[in-house]
Amino acid sequence: MDRSPAGDGIVRVGVLGCGNVGAALVALLGERRDAIAARTGLRLEVARVAVRSLARERPVVLGPDVLTRDTAAVVDAPDIDVVVEVIGGIEPARELSLAALKGGKPLVTANKELLANHGSELFAAADAAGVDLLFEAAVAGAIPILRPLRESLAGEDISRVMGIVNGTTNFILTRMSEQGSGYAEALAEAQSLGFAERDPAADVEGFDAGSKAAILASIAFGARVVAGDVHHEGIAGITAADIAFADRLGYAIKLLAVAERTPGPDGDEIGVRVHPAMVPLAHPLANVRDTFNAVFVEGRSVGELMFYGRGAGGRPTASAVLGDLVDAATNLCRGTHATVGALAKARIRPIDEVVSSYYLNLDVEDRPGVLRAIAEVVERHGVSIRSMEQQGLGEEARLIFITHQAREADVQATLADLRDLDVIHHVGSVLRVVGDDA
Amino acid sequence: MDRSPAGDGIVRVGVLGCGNVGAALVALLGERRDAIAARTGLRLEVARVAVRSLARERPVVLGPDVLTRDTAAVVDAPDIDVVVEVIGGIEPARELSLAALKGGKPLVTANKELLANHGSELFAAADAAGVDLLFEAAVAGAIPILRPLRESLAGEDISRVMGIVNGTTNFILTRMSEQGSGYAEALAEAQSLGFAERDPAADVEGFDAGSKAAILASIAFGARVVAGDVHHEGIAGITAADIAFADRLGYAIKLLAVAERTPGPDGDEIGVRVHPAMVPLAHPLANVRDTFNAVFVEGRSVGELMFYGRGAGGRPTASAVLGDLVDAATNLCRGTHATVGALAKARIRPIDEVVSSYYLNLDVEDRPGVLRAIAEVVERHGVSIRSMEQQGLGEEARLIFITHQAREADVQATLADLRDLDVIHHVGSVLRVVGDDA
Repeated sequence: MDRSPAGDGIVRVGVLGCGNVGAALVALLGERRDAIAARTGLRLEVARVAVRSLARERPVVLGPDVLTRDTAAVVDAPDIDVVVEVIGGIEPARELSLAALKGGKPLVTANKELLANHGSELFAAADAAGVDLLFEAAVAGAIPILRPLRESLAGEDISRVMGIVNGTTNFILTRMSEQGSGYAEALAEAQSLGFAERDPAADVEGFDAGSKAAILASIAFGARVVAGDVHHEGIAGITAADIAFADRLGYAIKLLAVAERTPGPDGDEIGVRVHPAMVPLAHPLANVRDTFNAVFVEGRSVGELMFYGRGAGGRPTASAVLGDLVDAATNLCRGTHATVGALAKARIRPIDEVVSSYYLNLDVEDRPGVLRAIAEVVERHGVSIRSMEQQGLGEEARLIFITHQAREADVQATLADLRDLDVIHHVGSVLRVVGDDA
Repeated sequence: MDRSPAGDGIVRVGVLGCGNVGAALVALLGERRDAIAARTGLRLEVARVAVRSLARERPVVLGPDVLTRDTAAVVDAPDIDVVVEVIGGIEPARELSLAALKGGKPLVTANKELLANHGSELFAAADAAGVDLLFEAAVAGAIPILRPLRESLAGEDISRVMGIVNGTTNFILTRMSEQGSGYAEALAEAQSLGFAERDPAADVEGFDAGSKAAILASIAFGARVVAGDVHHEGIAGITAADIAFADRLGYAIKLLAVAERTPGPDGDEIGVRVHPAMVPLAHPLANVRDTFNAVFVEGRSVGELMFYGRGAGGRPTASAVLGDLVDAATNLCRGTHATVGALAKARIRPIDEVVSSYYLNLDVEDRPGVLRAIAEVVERHGVSIRSMEQQGLGEEARLIFITHQAREADVQATLADLRDLDVIHHVGSVLRVVGDDA
């Protein structure tokens, strides 16, 4: 099999970074080398691994000729055929990735932050050099989602992609739902199990899911969407009471990344947001538990699809990287490459214009006229109520509303006016309801 | 964009068959032509459609220059670049598909029966000609599963694939479970809604799922597995009582296609079977309702994945065909092609050697010594009981057992001996329990 760049059937892989994913990749590649060779005729060898410190202990053994502190020996070296970037973060990952691509080396990366912020620049560099840029592991870890979106659904008119793409928050919400824990308690459990960082902001405030939402929107719609385009709300305000109400009404609360395409006056518009949402219990996303991820895709012909699996972890993520690596190596030896194509400009629909059904939770005075006062406010803003339920009586009365489809701006204006009503003591959680469009 | 075979950016598609899927494909291609051209630079044109009768009414309008009864004008014509086969069945689909491939035309097919019986011959013809043979739509309709298995999971060590791949039987089982219907009643409802044929044998006896199981096993394990290798049992024996018991024990009953790879004395062995199974309610497959399909994949690194969506229907299936068609057209213009690779020979593990946990349902005489008599038989065959429950008393007593992992042959021998016991009036359903290996 004389198909590799050097003509010896061996594809030399250079890896940037040797943390959790990098070390798992090196180990996995060792285990799977023969099976991959039997299937593709190519032998993938880890020729070089660039790290920050040579002294640090690692779970994989790497020879002194492989381990280096010199990143140029990976991205610029003529004897490296394909580069894997698993450093994470923006710099130096961006600079090194661009150097590899510009030097004509295919690049496989798991770096969501880099792609969500500098995707266009990287795609352009890959296309200019005529090499692969593959990043399946950047969204929903081990789940094959980007390749199906790009290739299997190449002919499909995709209208919406909704994902549970952050395992930490899904674990917290699962615990709150199944064990009745409060948010703080569930977060502490996630931290003690290593599922949440000591500073959990990136996960619980939706930044991590936001990067993934931007990448999903870019690939699903072929449009330029960056992390800064994503509206995000976190889960810290969700209470055990919200979860209990939701359950009684037939919903689970999940942190969703939602990317939608809708026709606008000047062409398609794209809305991208991350927020906790009420999902009907019969919806496939409602049953995604613990740290699992899932991405739900709606297309005009294909109907509903869902892709489910592990969203994080060294070995699952390394498996996704390895799938890309086999593809990049095969393409390289065939003299071809995949392409994301030129990403079109599309208007990003501001969150104010997003249309959804809403769950509202109001602590009210229990006296005649309260409901009428609320109904007046709601009606004034063109919002209509689908269902209402009173919980408790007297001082502790609480009204739970679910609205019909309404514009975010109208709902926010409604809430502002409701907060001014004397009879309303407190406006609790406001959650969008998805998956049962009404 | 001057990349198509004729150098004009147009890829001429020839279609064999214009039934449900063929007509939907022609319509979909018309709708999506511009979007595909914007993304790939290629214009896909339906140049010819071969049908049996020119007179028949069709939901799509085709010009007299497009519609033909001459299949050679599709498979042998120099002005056809890519062939789509949506006739179904073995002949003439096989002969025409081989002719197209041997003539150097990439082939996209949705024909599960053809692939499950003559896959190796077709793969060999495609490889010899150096052209694509793509068939995503043949398994689980619109769900992208074969491409992820072949490409995204190229580096993965897959141990098991379990799928709900027949929508008819899943609809029947869903109705039995959610409405308490009997089998005959649920089947009649499926027939009246058009989800089941008047002669439902292919679906309810597991033949359809068996073909899909063979294809899944071939692609997941890179091994030669044909329809005849698949052990299959249908759902006609499942009673409303079985479903109710299963539910109370925490299980759903689903018709599963299971493909497993296990190490044997002379290399890997592959077991492929279709049968009703008890799936724990918390398992993602248990929540797949109505006519939906899903395929659950277990791999050593990747952990658990699931792919969910529509398994049938003209437009969903056409969407999967179109994804393959875009891929085949792109590859053709780049002078490359995908390959399944040589399928290895592997020993097919006979059903007798399959290991599983079992649910047994026995109508017994309610008197002292019965349980001891049963325990003696079970123990003699090396089967061990994980849980037992008695339902009813006196004449109507029923014992429900769930075993630990046991060999099929041992369970069958146990059942034969149990049937000989005077104290056992009737041996009811015997179901394999999957998804909570114990």
